[in-house]
Amino acid sequence: MNGAEALVRTLRGTGVEVCFTNPGTSEMHFVAALDRLNLLRCILALQENVATGAADGYARMTGKPAATLLHLGPGFGNGLANVHNAKKARVPMVNIVGDHATYHVKYDAPLTADIEGIAGPVSDWVKTTQSADDVGADAAEAVAAANSWPGRIATLMLPADAAWTETPNTGAAVEPEGPLPISEADVAGAVRLLSSGKKCALFVSGATLVEPGLTKLGKIAAKAGCDLICQTSNRRVDRGAGRVAVKRLPYPIDLALQMLAPYEALVLIGAPEPVGFFAYPNKPSRLAADEAEIVSLATPFQDTDDALDRLIAALGAGETEPVRRAATPPPDPASITGEVGPETISKALSAVFPENAVIVDESITTGRMFYPDTEGAPPHTWLQITGGAIGDGLPMAVGAAIACPDRKVVVLQSDGSALYTNQALWTMARERLDVAVLLFSNRAYRILEGEMVGVGVEKQGAVADALFGLNDPEIDWCKMAESMGVAAVRVDRAEDLAPAFADAIACNGPKLVEIVF
Amino acid sequence: MNGAEALVRTLRGTGVEVCFTNPGTSEMHFVAALDRLNLLRCILALQENVATGAADGYARMTGKPAATLLHLGPGFGNGLANVHNAKKARVPMVNIVGDHATYHVKYDAPLTADIEGIAGPVSDWVKTTQSADDVGADAAEAVAAANSWPGRIATLMLPADAAWTETPNTGAAVEPEGPLPISEADVAGAVRLLSSGKKCALFVSGATLVEPGLTKLGKIAAKAGCDLICQTSNRRVDRGAGRVAVKRLPYPIDLALQMLAPYEALVLIGAPEPVGFFAYPNKPSRLAADEAEIVSLATPFQDTDDALDRLIAALGAGETEPVRRAATPPPDPASITGEVGPETISKALSAVFPENAVIVDESITTGRMFYPDTEGAPPHTWLQITGGAIGDGLPMAVGAAIACPDRKVVVLQSDGSALYTNQALWTMARERLDVAVLLFSNRAYRILEGEMVGVGVEKQGAVADALFGLNDPEIDWCKMAESMGVAAVRVDRAEDLAPAFADAIACNGPKLVEIVF
Repeated sequence: MNGAEALVRTLRGTGVEVCFTNPGTSEMHFVAALDRLNLLRCILALQENVATGAADGYARMTGKPAATLLHLGPGFGNGLANVHNAKKARVPMVNIVGDHATYHVKYDAPLTADIEGIAGPVSDWVKTTQSADDVGADAAEAVAAANSWPGRIATLMLPADAAWTETPNTGAAVEPEGPLPISEADVAGAVRLLSSGKKCALFVSGATLVEPGLTKLGKIAAKAGCDLICQTSNRRVDRGAGRVAVKRLPYPIDLALQMLAPYEALVLIGAPEPVGFFAYPNKPSRLAADEAEIVSLATPFQDTDDALDRLIAALGAGETEPVRRAATPPPDPASITGEVGPETISKALSAVFPENAVIVDESITTGRMFYPDTEGAPPHTWLQITGGAIGDGLPMAVGAAIACPDRKVVVLQSDGSALYTNQALWTMARERLDVAVLLFSNRAYRILEGEMVGVGVEKQGAVADALFGLNDPEIDWCKMAESMGVAAVRVDRAEDLAPAFADAIACNGPKLVEIVF
Repeated sequence: MNGAEALVRTLRGTGVEVCFTNPGTSEMHFVAALDRLNLLRCILALQENVATGAADGYARMTGKPAATLLHLGPGFGNGLANVHNAKKARVPMVNIVGDHATYHVKYDAPLTADIEGIAGPVSDWVKTTQSADDVGADAAEAVAAANSWPGRIATLMLPADAAWTETPNTGAAVEPEGPLPISEADVAGAVRLLSSGKKCALFVSGATLVEPGLTKLGKIAAKAGCDLICQTSNRRVDRGAGRVAVKRLPYPIDLALQMLAPYEALVLIGAPEPVGFFAYPNKPSRLAADEAEIVSLATPFQDTDDALDRLIAALGAGETEPVRRAATPPPDPASITGEVGPETISKALSAVFPENAVIVDESITTGRMFYPDTEGAPPHTWLQITGGAIGDGLPMAVGAAIACPDRKVVVLQSDGSALYTNQALWTMARERLDVAVLLFSNRAYRILEGEMVGVGVEKQGAVADALFGLNDPEIDWCKMAESMGVAAVRVDRAEDLAPAFADAIACNGPKLVEIVF
């Protein structure tokens, strides 16, 4: 057994089942071991940000880390943005990064770089294996780090000579770190605020947004008469008819300030206090009302499940029935007429919304109504980009579809963001993934046009026009999808939206609908 | 004037003329300043690795830094691989990276990351501007760092509040650092070796590979009776009929060892000693013959031009006529028959080779014969990926075409690498760049199949097949190019290669030829 084989055996032995990769020469011994042992499902990505984004989506749906296999510093760099998103989502992920043989690094060959330096800022745990004998133990430590609460990014560098040298050692599973405990004072603070008579919201994220957290949130809200608001960007939200509904803080700063303005008190559970996505001149970074009192029941690193249980016990809400969201009757497709745009698209989505879908939302400006409009849709899961690094939608859909082959994945995808990682379409075709991509082709970085107004520009000039416009030339998304083996159809009439969405959702395999407006 | 305007004025005032970018919200004040002042030519890239690769190509052809404008840590991460390539090429580049307002960083909003940490490993100079008053001076320092010998990567972080705050200060030009001097001992060592009777080669890179360096190399070689060999990967080589020819060290380690085996002595000029691209079991990292004597006349950080002058003087080669490469008569297109593959493609390229072209070579396995086969082609410039991070071909062509609107750019492009940054095709269409893309669609990571054999795998299994094959589904490169506004044609018969290449080269604007084999 060489080090590469020890690594594959250890990953499988500690619960890793899937590897998203674009390997290179320095990873050949690892690929040979994957090939020989056939213990991990290997998924090829045409660019590393697809691999890392897929590992993010996979982790969100399974709660388990996938491995990525990346090629030295530049390979990690290519995938860095979606590792960043995954880190902000607090998901488990194990990145294996091939490196030069230890003795070769000093010669500064072309691909030599400070990989730990590049990976460190977006990883929670980083290590370079020093020899084949250490590979197994290091890999087990990496998996444990990834599985530590609430989900962490572990990055292990594998020098080529550690991969090709013989070793008798595999690594035994290591216990991950659990959440930090909840103290009596944490609970008392929350109870005091909820009993103070102040208008209060629980501001939540993390594990609270899936069951059993949702039901517990609902009990507390019903008992204490408080509202439920979640972060703008969350790892995963289970929602829809029959579930406890949680309002989401809007992205635009004025809308976010407006939503929080009435609240005199916020109890944080699994979320830090609400802050602006960006800073703007003469607008606050902290979004709660100035006079609002804020207490933290559980930071993201504490045990949110226990926090909810103890708060329920303290409030005597154990038998309280949560308010569950009623189903919204789907709109009649025939009523969807007029211009193609955010409103008609949202209506069409509601009209054909599939049961038990995984919705991957990178719809940016087009999709601001999608989330509120689908609160009473059939039960589903909602995934979003969490770190603000665009280009996570299509890759995350790949990972979610690998994780949940029995669920339809629907990607709500803006065009500008999709262009970052269009290569993910190929992996969807190759793996026959059951993904419907609704591609919103407004042919502009529309969000930036809004942000220019936000910084006080009244009339945008030619330079800005050229930097925000995707209309010269227009992207032909049907050809783009077809070039990578994904069937596609174009829609530019409101009447055709719902039928095209329904068709893509009914299709068993990847299909892209290009919505031009 | 706000800080953003001060930055734009300072960049322009210190010689920066072009900005390759994909901006985001944190860069809006900078974009507004670009828009208002209209002092830099702004080129939009659909993904940051296109922007940084274009800045690389631009710098190689002009010797001047372009600016890139990138969006926080993930934006830099997306462009990191081609910054890595540019750093290994030792070109000047000024990266401007927008950051959160200084006071907003502590709130850890979604896009917050340690940008200096991410950028540092691939930059030679890194700084975060602290206030609007500092922006101008910092930018001038960044440009000076970029222009310092032999060309460096400068990365300046621009917090949003430094961009939007008023300031009276722009930055005055700062003198860049020149090369380190050549000592008498350096020259004496080279002379001793060249006069020793040993079989000797000058092993060169950097500025020696363009005029006046080439002619000087030729004088030395003719006088001393030594050979000329350059690195496997070089920033820029001017070559072809009438020029001094320099053999290139092959990439495959066995061929590299074979080329260097006869040499008893190497004189290094603008290059470190030759080392393997990767390490392999039981093969050396250092490629020169064990018994070869190696002396460095000039490291990449020393004054190679002065080194050549002084060596010429010491050898008395001032009046020596260099050997100049004779023209190779182009093959008759009618003679190109048989299978489409590296041989027929290379022959077709030689048959239609345009005068004064800029050749961008990311042809990987398909193109191993292109370089030797075109030694006697009409005079041209050859650019390669220098850091081994694939995905630099199409972006570099964008930058070269912006830099040299009067020269035809021909990209020799492998399919696997092209998929990394296919978005560059769109920028070619948008800017009407005069680029012919010859896309070699062998539908595999062919290089990795070879590397698997190299690590001792005799029979590749299904997992490796799936990780190396780009054939399921096949990429339709014509549709891919057309989806982004670039005209394209497919060729799968050897007879059609030369006519299709000639047509793409004659076309005034971007055109892609998909060569299927």
